[in-house]
Amino acid sequence: MRAVVACCQLVLSVEDPAGNRARLAAAIERAAAAGANIVVLPELAITGYRFESRAEVAAVAEDRDGITIRDWHRLAARHDLVIVGGFVEAGEGVFHNSAAVVDASGLRAIYRKVHLWDREREWFSPGAAAPPVLETRFGRIGVVICYDLEFPEWVRMAALAGAELLCAPVNWPLFPRPTGERPAEVIRVQADAAVNRMFVAACDRAGTERGTEWLGGAVIVDPDGFPLTELRLGTEDTVMTTIDLAEAVVKTIGDRNDVFADRRPELYRGL
Amino acid sequence: MRAVVACCQLVLSVEDPAGNRARLAAAIERAAAAGANIVVLPELAITGYRFESRAEVAAVAEDRDGITIRDWHRLAARHDLVIVGGFVEAGEGVFHNSAAVVDASGLRAIYRKVHLWDREREWFSPGAAAPPVLETRFGRIGVVICYDLEFPEWVRMAALAGAELLCAPVNWPLFPRPTGERPAEVIRVQADAAVNRMFVAACDRAGTERGTEWLGGAVIVDPDGFPLTELRLGTEDTVMTTIDLAEAVVKTIGDRNDVFADRRPELYRGL
Repeated sequence: MRAVVACCQLVLSVEDPAGNRARLAAAIERAAAAGANIVVLPELAITGYRFESRAEVAAVAEDRDGITIRDWHRLAARHDLVIVGGFVEAGEGVFHNSAAVVDASGLRAIYRKVHLWDREREWFSPGAAAPPVLETRFGRIGVVICYDLEFPEWVRMAALAGAELLCAPVNWPLFPRPTGERPAEVIRVQADAAVNRMFVAACDRAGTERGTEWLGGAVIVDPDGFPLTELRLGTEDTVMTTIDLAEAVVKTIGDRNDVFADRRPELYRGL
Repeated sequence: MRAVVACCQLVLSVEDPAGNRARLAAAIERAAAAGANIVVLPELAITGYRFESRAEVAAVAEDRDGITIRDWHRLAARHDLVIVGGFVEAGEGVFHNSAAVVDASGLRAIYRKVHLWDREREWFSPGAAAPPVLETRFGRIGVVICYDLEFPEWVRMAALAGAELLCAPVNWPLFPRPTGERPAEVIRVQADAAVNRMFVAACDRAGTERGTEWLGGAVIVDPDGFPLTELRLGTEDTVMTTIDLAEAVVKTIGDRNDVFADRRPELYRGL
């Protein structure tokens, strides 16, 4: 089943949630007009990332009946989209760095980030559930968030559960790298895709927020591990490409190898 | 502890084991003369790779008292080296695609490749033991072979066992890739290094053997996931660099993250 995947790499601000919401809605509309079927948004897209207090987090937290899920449901229904995007979820007296999967039928799943980055531990409780993998109109979609991508165990779990496309809302801070090198975040996504022979769509953000410069490394990678989209580092832009999720069902390499069947789980110890 | 690591990317042939042996000895001598402390050789370096029958494999199989280990011990003792290289090991009625670790004191470990590639299953029995991780004069060295690198579980086990430098003899067949893209094999090694914050030295081979063209992608990667050596694709050459294995002891990123401590093994299921 062929599908057009879009990653909307926007400039967002923790100081302007209403502005973020409007920019996200406009970007989703533009992606839909350009033919997108699956739209991936950044981590904490609605709220921005660089919180300075738990009170700031509390002020923007929403539950599954909140305006964000309703907004995305309306847009998904209008354009027959699958939307995957990040928001602050209000749990039972705690907050989560979560991503929602919404389609024309409504909310399909919420995933709570398991591997927390930097100051996130000060305001977010880590998730305790595996990455969701959902049958959608366009194929089987898995979800993880940002730093989760750096734990190959976690990515493998989504792949083994049948994810053909792993959608990853991210906020990648800009780190120094040697001249001419592709960002290590993108390299790791390429490897995540290749070792599991699945597609990965990572949606980053651009711009600077309270002193943090964002990489802007949104990328869609194929099951061979090669990017299908041009990097638009640091730039507000939407990257889009057409993929055939069926390519990620077959795990064989040549006549004699299969990246799943060749695993030796009976020998994997201490993971 | 600083150490000079060399990967000797040679043209080898399954039809000329005596020639391979001589070329390997000469390359080790040259690397030692250039200051190498740790010398990594290709997978099945002594014998070549493209066997066409089990009889061919049987004809070149050796045990731990064979000439290869003795050769490498003599060279390691003469130059105070750690040598990691591939050979066909004769087991009990079976053969293994193995790598030996030899230093001035003699044979330190033999690792038997666990994840077998292509026709290897026709002549090799897969190993059943974890990657060895050895304390050496230059730091803690782990060993895996080629396709093993594509199983992040296996690489993680070596890293969790304390490998600061993972040495990987490989034979990477040349696969097509998009123009301008770095080979996916190298990308995966970069990710293997980065997610575990360890060094990885992969020693490939060059040239063509019975119709198989080899990539020649030997590379030494740092714990940030960036290559420390220039790719010499398809070329017979030795890549060398100085590394400080102590950099791979610390697993932290910034003040609040640690790629090992941040793992959530209690949630990793079905691996």
